[in-house]
Amino acid sequence: MQTCIDMYRTRTCGELNIANVGETVTLAGWVQKARKMGGMTFVDIRDRYGITQIVFNEDINTELCGQANKLGREWVIQVTGKVAERSSKNKNIPTGEIEIIADKLEILNVAEVPPFTIEDNTDGGDDLRMQYRYLDLRRNCVRSNLELRHKIAFEIRRFLDEQHFLEVETPVLIKSTPEGARDFVVPSRMNPGQFYALPQSPQQFKQLLMVAGFDRYFQIVKCFRDEDLRADRQPEFTQIDCEMSFVEQEDVLNIFEAMIKHIFKYVKGIDFKDPFPRMTWHECMRLYGSDKPDMRFGMTFVELKDLTEGHGFSVFDNAKIVVGICAEGCAEYTRKQLDQLTDFVKKPQVGAKGLVYVKYEKDGSFKSSVDKFYAQEDLKKWADRFNAKPGDLMLILCGDDVNKTRKQMNELRLEMGERLGLRDKNKFAPLWVIDFPLFEWSEEDSRFYAMHHPFTSPKTEDIQYLDSDPGRVRANAYDLAMNGVELGGGSIRIHDSKLQNKMFQLLGFTPEKAMDQFGCLINAFKYGAPPHGGLAFGLDRVVSMLAGLDSIRDCIAFPKNNAGRDVMIDSPSAIDEAQLKELCLKINL
Amino acid sequence: MQTCIDMYRTRTCGELNIANVGETVTLAGWVQKARKMGGMTFVDIRDRYGITQIVFNEDINTELCGQANKLGREWVIQVTGKVAERSSKNKNIPTGEIEIIADKLEILNVAEVPPFTIEDNTDGGDDLRMQYRYLDLRRNCVRSNLELRHKIAFEIRRFLDEQHFLEVETPVLIKSTPEGARDFVVPSRMNPGQFYALPQSPQQFKQLLMVAGFDRYFQIVKCFRDEDLRADRQPEFTQIDCEMSFVEQEDVLNIFEAMIKHIFKYVKGIDFKDPFPRMTWHECMRLYGSDKPDMRFGMTFVELKDLTEGHGFSVFDNAKIVVGICAEGCAEYTRKQLDQLTDFVKKPQVGAKGLVYVKYEKDGSFKSSVDKFYAQEDLKKWADRFNAKPGDLMLILCGDDVNKTRKQMNELRLEMGERLGLRDKNKFAPLWVIDFPLFEWSEEDSRFYAMHHPFTSPKTEDIQYLDSDPGRVRANAYDLAMNGVELGGGSIRIHDSKLQNKMFQLLGFTPEKAMDQFGCLINAFKYGAPPHGGLAFGLDRVVSMLAGLDSIRDCIAFPKNNAGRDVMIDSPSAIDEAQLKELCLKINL
Repeated sequence: MQTCIDMYRTRTCGELNIANVGETVTLAGWVQKARKMGGMTFVDIRDRYGITQIVFNEDINTELCGQANKLGREWVIQVTGKVAERSSKNKNIPTGEIEIIADKLEILNVAEVPPFTIEDNTDGGDDLRMQYRYLDLRRNCVRSNLELRHKIAFEIRRFLDEQHFLEVETPVLIKSTPEGARDFVVPSRMNPGQFYALPQSPQQFKQLLMVAGFDRYFQIVKCFRDEDLRADRQPEFTQIDCEMSFVEQEDVLNIFEAMIKHIFKYVKGIDFKDPFPRMTWHECMRLYGSDKPDMRFGMTFVELKDLTEGHGFSVFDNAKIVVGICAEGCAEYTRKQLDQLTDFVKKPQVGAKGLVYVKYEKDGSFKSSVDKFYAQEDLKKWADRFNAKPGDLMLILCGDDVNKTRKQMNELRLEMGERLGLRDKNKFAPLWVIDFPLFEWSEEDSRFYAMHHPFTSPKTEDIQYLDSDPGRVRANAYDLAMNGVELGGGSIRIHDSKLQNKMFQLLGFTPEKAMDQFGCLINAFKYGAPPHGGLAFGLDRVVSMLAGLDSIRDCIAFPKNNAGRDVMIDSPSAIDEAQLKELCLKINL
Repeated sequence: MQTCIDMYRTRTCGELNIANVGETVTLAGWVQKARKMGGMTFVDIRDRYGITQIVFNEDINTELCGQANKLGREWVIQVTGKVAERSSKNKNIPTGEIEIIADKLEILNVAEVPPFTIEDNTDGGDDLRMQYRYLDLRRNCVRSNLELRHKIAFEIRRFLDEQHFLEVETPVLIKSTPEGARDFVVPSRMNPGQFYALPQSPQQFKQLLMVAGFDRYFQIVKCFRDEDLRADRQPEFTQIDCEMSFVEQEDVLNIFEAMIKHIFKYVKGIDFKDPFPRMTWHECMRLYGSDKPDMRFGMTFVELKDLTEGHGFSVFDNAKIVVGICAEGCAEYTRKQLDQLTDFVKKPQVGAKGLVYVKYEKDGSFKSSVDKFYAQEDLKKWADRFNAKPGDLMLILCGDDVNKTRKQMNELRLEMGERLGLRDKNKFAPLWVIDFPLFEWSEEDSRFYAMHHPFTSPKTEDIQYLDSDPGRVRANAYDLAMNGVELGGGSIRIHDSKLQNKMFQLLGFTPEKAMDQFGCLINAFKYGAPPHGGLAFGLDRVVSMLAGLDSIRDCIAFPKNNAGRDVMIDSPSAIDEAQLKELCLKINL
């Protein structure tokens, strides 16, 4: 690949090979390393495309070699010379068979010694690398994540353009809505005392575009949420935001399944041949205790309540649910290993009271922490339900709160998957989670909230339960999970004003409050809203997934830390008194 | 083109023609109009792709026809029927040869009567259309601007991707810099009393990416400026932001000239065969009185000071510059027309004191407003310099301030171009304006400012004048002008720390102030900055240019008005006292 011919170079540092031997070339880049060996000086020059070895020979050009000996790490140089075959070849890099015999060396810029090494295995810690992010980005492993991000965004656009989607930019300075997560706000100088808000998502605008007849909309767009940050959250993040008209859930799922397959194919060379599996939310909770199950491995939940009852083990007898997983081939786990698992489930983040294990020994016998209460033949019945074989280990939790216990079991399942090496980063297991409940009960506020948002449509066949049993109503809402991560989700929206008013009422909005918050959309719906629906993917999460990263931070060029600070540019920061005055604001600490 | 097959439709309203006759199809869309003619009812159904005529026959299906008769404008319907050839064909639309004989009609949604007609020639005024922008966007002429915008952005990305540019998202929550235009700021809840700023451009970040070795960067990105708004400004606007390493001005101009040509070719089918002309800033000012001259027509400036002197006309004698243009074939302008032109130049927005005209009559004689002072043979000399022919009209201004007078002349030239129909919206005349001055003298502050920004590099050969004659120093800075509009501009940056320090000093920055504002970049430059440069285009302006629009507002989906308000969503607005408190802010009107 001949890449960039610019004034300062005829070739890049990643493209020369044995076929170029004899050519005179000019390269420009950074000094990766320089070493003197006898009368020869070898300099590795690096750019975005690769590394090429330059040779200076003291006998042939003493002055030039003298210059080369002065070069420091990360100096910016320009070298002209002839491509030659190397005597000792490096098969690990594409340019490893050649070197450049230097004729000319120009120092374009000097550099101080960087605070950490510019290598995949750097000696720099997290904080230092964030402070000098511009140096961190020189590292191959960091830059390649951003190259991948570029490629993914490009392929998404190519796919959606072919499907007649229009990318429409919606405004960044919008209106604050008090419900939901906290908005970032922007004081308006021209409208004193008033504020814009930064969008948490372009939800209302994309629905307005459907009312406007735009039919198929998408946008790769920055969104903002003023939340206390966790490891996998950033105050600004990027969404692949999509909406379609005249569609049902099936249309949306099909198009975006095809989009995800397109990305994997064109970016990773991975072909998903089969349709993505689908599972209802209730089934997900029952089998995995999670609405984003990691489908790379089995270990689905098995419920045992009926088999455990009436044996005098009050812990199980008093529980609402007894649920377990079967860890294949783990019967040989030591006391210590089992204790570790018990400690794991008892961590406050998991919150179980204890763990029951049953070892299905190789000889067919059972050994368990509840041997006192259950005979061998009882445990055999459990094992049969688990489909366990001799050599397997059954891990069992119980509790009063069915959902809570399942979530604890989910944590244990993921931990076991980790321990057993079943969470391979090169394996990708997608799952459409469908039929989400429409409402979520809040114990704290003793009321229902919309699980997705107030515009999500209930399933037609469940509308009958809206009044009598709201908790039973399923929504036309769906998520795409992959490897235990929610990549995106969406819903078919309500397009009928009467049903929308009913929803507002059920969610405790007075008509005035609904108008105040969603007035624009409610009005727009009076003028002919088509049936529509859509979804949004987290681009940061999609990139992290394909890059095999643990944190979205690693695929963001200039991320913020957990205090929402950019330590590199030192932001946020104080502003001038004069500017505050112009904005009619006072700080009140 | 078979477009979208969704649950609600098998075809769109823009694709059926004579070849589809006999097919049974289902369409969904909005009622454009419905009319009853005898026993037949004709309904035009509209979607993003076009309009199709539906026919209901009272004799064949009375009930269905009765339903159709109840349809109102903008109702959302779904129709199934058979494609038939029309008896009276409409050759103006692609679907004009067919109609659908309706079998089934489903009303998907009713609509109130819209406040204005959904037609290219609507009866809705500006304010009303902005308030109901979601209805305005249904109009073909508005939607097509946004379709064009999508296509332009897509082609830009396709071109730059092929040229190995990486699109990198830079942060939206950045650091406020007091210099330059006013920033929008965002209070940080997690860092009380501190603020983020929204970027006016990603300038520092793109230069940091060059330090990071990213080589070829671009981004189509929202930028923000809290300015008092003019017709062609929006508080948020979109930039095509680009930067390259190891390049000189020539590289940048070549790549981005190719990009603009690519857009015109793939979006408009226009092939620019010749290289874009280039002109120095000084030449532009001398010939056009503008750094973004409209090159669709001639009428370049002619200077006459030497020819006008010593004839007793003190106005010219006392002026520093006497400058004119020649309007071909306008010698027959009436007294009234000439008075209009005089009024035009005397408008406060133009600011000239008066206008001198010389008519070169068809018979070879001259008639002018300064006949008293100048003989026929004097005026002949002027005419020769203008290259005027009998029948032409010379229009002359003079003044003390050369630049001011040229700017006035520029306004008159554009006005004459308009009057003479020389500003054809289907003609595109690009011009690279190069060699901008590095500094701009501010009379008000009695100091030099950077014309572009403090990182713009001076021409090597002019560095010698930095101290002695800063006003003479030319920069490696360039703009792309087209049809009198600045589409974009940029510069080669300084990559040498010493020269950068010199620049800061000349611009009156103390080292402390420079560090405070640009510390991150100054530090980054210590670690090996490559030679680099770039530019940014205004996407809104590029789209407006290709769409032939007068205002960028027309190519923005949800624009703000001149008070920075979105009248549709009613933003900005007041926020909760509780939220202000969380942000440690008080409003102080």
